[in-house]
Amino acid sequence: MNYKMIRYIIGMILVAESAFMVLPMIVSVIYGEFDIIMPFVYSIITTFVAATLFGLKKPKIDLVFAKESYIAVAAGWILVSLFGAMPFYLSGAIPSVADAIFETVSGFTTTGATILTAVEHLPKGILFWRTFTHWIGGMGIIVFLMMLTQISEGHSLYIMRAEVPGPSVGKITPKSSSNALILYGIYTALTVVEFVFLLFGGMPVFDAITTAMSTAGTGGFSVRDAGIGAYDSAYIEWVVAIFMLIFSINFNLYFLILIKKLKIAIRSEELKVFLTIIAVSTLAIGISCFDYYGDFGTSIRKAFFQTTAIISTSGFGGIEYMDWPMLCHSVLLILMFIGGCAGSTAGGIKLSRIIMTFKMLRKESHRLAHPHGVTTIKFEGKFVDKETRSFIMVYMSAFFVILAISSIIIMITGHDYETAFTATLTCLNNVGPALGEIGHSGLFAMFSGIEKIFFSLLMLTGRLEIFPILILFMPTTWRKH
Amino acid sequence: MNYKMIRYIIGMILVAESAFMVLPMIVSVIYGEFDIIMPFVYSIITTFVAATLFGLKKPKIDLVFAKESYIAVAAGWILVSLFGAMPFYLSGAIPSVADAIFETVSGFTTTGATILTAVEHLPKGILFWRTFTHWIGGMGIIVFLMMLTQISEGHSLYIMRAEVPGPSVGKITPKSSSNALILYGIYTALTVVEFVFLLFGGMPVFDAITTAMSTAGTGGFSVRDAGIGAYDSAYIEWVVAIFMLIFSINFNLYFLILIKKLKIAIRSEELKVFLTIIAVSTLAIGISCFDYYGDFGTSIRKAFFQTTAIISTSGFGGIEYMDWPMLCHSVLLILMFIGGCAGSTAGGIKLSRIIMTFKMLRKESHRLAHPHGVTTIKFEGKFVDKETRSFIMVYMSAFFVILAISSIIIMITGHDYETAFTATLTCLNNVGPALGEIGHSGLFAMFSGIEKIFFSLLMLTGRLEIFPILILFMPTTWRKH
Repeated sequence: MNYKMIRYIIGMILVAESAFMVLPMIVSVIYGEFDIIMPFVYSIITTFVAATLFGLKKPKIDLVFAKESYIAVAAGWILVSLFGAMPFYLSGAIPSVADAIFETVSGFTTTGATILTAVEHLPKGILFWRTFTHWIGGMGIIVFLMMLTQISEGHSLYIMRAEVPGPSVGKITPKSSSNALILYGIYTALTVVEFVFLLFGGMPVFDAITTAMSTAGTGGFSVRDAGIGAYDSAYIEWVVAIFMLIFSINFNLYFLILIKKLKIAIRSEELKVFLTIIAVSTLAIGISCFDYYGDFGTSIRKAFFQTTAIISTSGFGGIEYMDWPMLCHSVLLILMFIGGCAGSTAGGIKLSRIIMTFKMLRKESHRLAHPHGVTTIKFEGKFVDKETRSFIMVYMSAFFVILAISSIIIMITGHDYETAFTATLTCLNNVGPALGEIGHSGLFAMFSGIEKIFFSLLMLTGRLEIFPILILFMPTTWRKH
Repeated sequence: MNYKMIRYIIGMILVAESAFMVLPMIVSVIYGEFDIIMPFVYSIITTFVAATLFGLKKPKIDLVFAKESYIAVAAGWILVSLFGAMPFYLSGAIPSVADAIFETVSGFTTTGATILTAVEHLPKGILFWRTFTHWIGGMGIIVFLMMLTQISEGHSLYIMRAEVPGPSVGKITPKSSSNALILYGIYTALTVVEFVFLLFGGMPVFDAITTAMSTAGTGGFSVRDAGIGAYDSAYIEWVVAIFMLIFSINFNLYFLILIKKLKIAIRSEELKVFLTIIAVSTLAIGISCFDYYGDFGTSIRKAFFQTTAIISTSGFGGIEYMDWPMLCHSVLLILMFIGGCAGSTAGGIKLSRIIMTFKMLRKESHRLAHPHGVTTIKFEGKFVDKETRSFIMVYMSAFFVILAISSIIIMITGHDYETAFTATLTCLNNVGPALGEIGHSGLFAMFSGIEKIFFSLLMLTGRLEIFPILILFMPTTWRKH
């Protein structure tokens, strides 16, 4: 095992984080919040010192294989969350360590579940850092590093794989720094476009920046206690909803559009299914909410907003969905399972895995009925090989086993079914809000410190798509061969 | 497609069923319940006439392939349930058609969920038929037919596969009528042994017969309103608990013991894990129930009874587990997922599939970390081939997807989470009791007729292990090639 490279990658990740923290510090300076400047300075220095302790000099042998990559990425994300919690804790914004860690993990993993019941009284610098973690976590810290440098000649693919969401089916992983640059370019451009649209809607500049970053990462943190509802503007709701949809589509499609291959982009199987699900869910919720709003326009808008909020795993709160009829809750629960498209910033199982699961089910039924027939599976026009098929099935099983066991663990600690199950699901799929006792995402505060750390681990497991965290904690990983 | 053979197999299944109905009719005669003799006669004649309409003459071309087998078995089980409901409906014991179908499906699938809130007032003939369906369903109607005759020369393996529970890992499917005879022999012998043990405990003869049949099929129907608790005997509780355990162990192990290969039998990986889970669960529940009973002996006995009742998917009710602490409920919920061993009469996902899933998870993590290494999986001392591994993963994914979608459908019809989820799980895994609104299995009565039919389909899906029912309803099955 190339321990030096693992330390180097972690070091680089922490340097990047300390650099990121400079931005919220500047925000504090701009808004004259002088009492939180020092907490940021301490955090920046501590993180940087930690980075140097891990090592910032690239080792001579910079070869990393799969194992080192998974370990570095999993450990890197855990450490980023711990150091990222410092500003919250040191500034006194979040006076409990477990709470601060939960909030930071929720930020970087773009979950958007929060332990804060009110946020408007917090300093702007802290609020900025909170939504900035969404923006960083959405595209990924490794992808960011990749953009600036080749961490490892030739073997960076392994490192990327550990961080970029989605199954490898039909996914273009950014293999080189130029690809990473294009991805971050699209990401930044779309964020800026949303920011401008929000400004047009009369949103204050600070709110527009943070809301755009939160939407881009499909996170869901807001700088208002009432969330998007605080602006009381149908225009803003539409803009946020449409951008939540945009950020949960595979970024490769935007890349295809950029290189003028629009026809190939709109032929995407996953995209078609995705838009169909959104249309059907919006209609179903809109119709069943008609009585609640008494006006079809409003109920369709609210339905579209909530549909995209959940399927994109942004989970912007502030909408009165808890009072909607049961049918809406059921639809939202289904969307919570699915999540966005592969290769987007959205969480969830990912639609392509769901589509593949149904295709596999049909195939296996067919194979059982015709044991001597040849059955193949096509996805996005390409044949899917056995290895990939098998891996998707293992992923699905792993997902459900972790979901079942974790829900039961939370039940044991004394919560009802609905709370335990939806809180686990919302964390594992990086959605944010839940149903039951917690309801609106704000109420994660009710859990104990240990439960919050457990949920933090679940969010990381979900964001890194299960295996990096499993590999990190598996004894065989550390056994000498 | 060999339609003639499908019709012939269904015909044979119905003839067997009409013959089975003679037994409860005799019971009615013995107990002088003359008003229910005619309902049985009508049921026997109708079922027999239906059988002749399907065809009782073996077609000249008796080749059946996988597809025909799955269709015949799935359709056969559905028809057996419909005709089996006749005595309940015609006798007036269950005056609603949906209820009668639910009860019969619950019987044949050995689920043991019931819509009856009280049973003691029912005629003995009806009670006998109710538990007899458990006994028939436990081992399977096809296996019974196999014992008497070769349905199809050389291709009976396909037919068996469609009915016998458990993944093909380490399973000896009864390939010939002699094997089927051995299996039914062991099954009958163990049932008789339990009957004798129950008689020793002072149980009335009728109760002992029906309880033994119910335990053997791991069903859970009782002839007493208070279930096993009605006998108020620690001895009887121990006997039933031990036999529930015995009937949820792979029958091949008994076969190995019969041919004096005890050493191989006790080396079984699945058996060891099974007994460990039972021991740990009994201890965990026993300790946390200590306060409730104030006596360690009683709490361990109650814990052992409930543990084996749930893991064996018998689900004998009548025990006050609803008042136990939350921890017990969580443990029972885990057991509800697992189910018994492959090749037993128990339902559930089956322990071997759970073990394989964890092995696959470990293997895939290892493969990701070492992409060029060779990884294999051993189960019960044998290497598991790719095909089998992939199928188990597809099965697990299918199970959880069906569980999630079905729970949400039941939620939409207006039930809370806990009820929807545990009712779906208990039906799909053929357990019987649930938690939430329904609690004790008796309260399935609260669901509507359509919901009961839906649950019936779920029970059949679970009993036949998903794919036969999927294949039956898949449009491609019926498409001409």
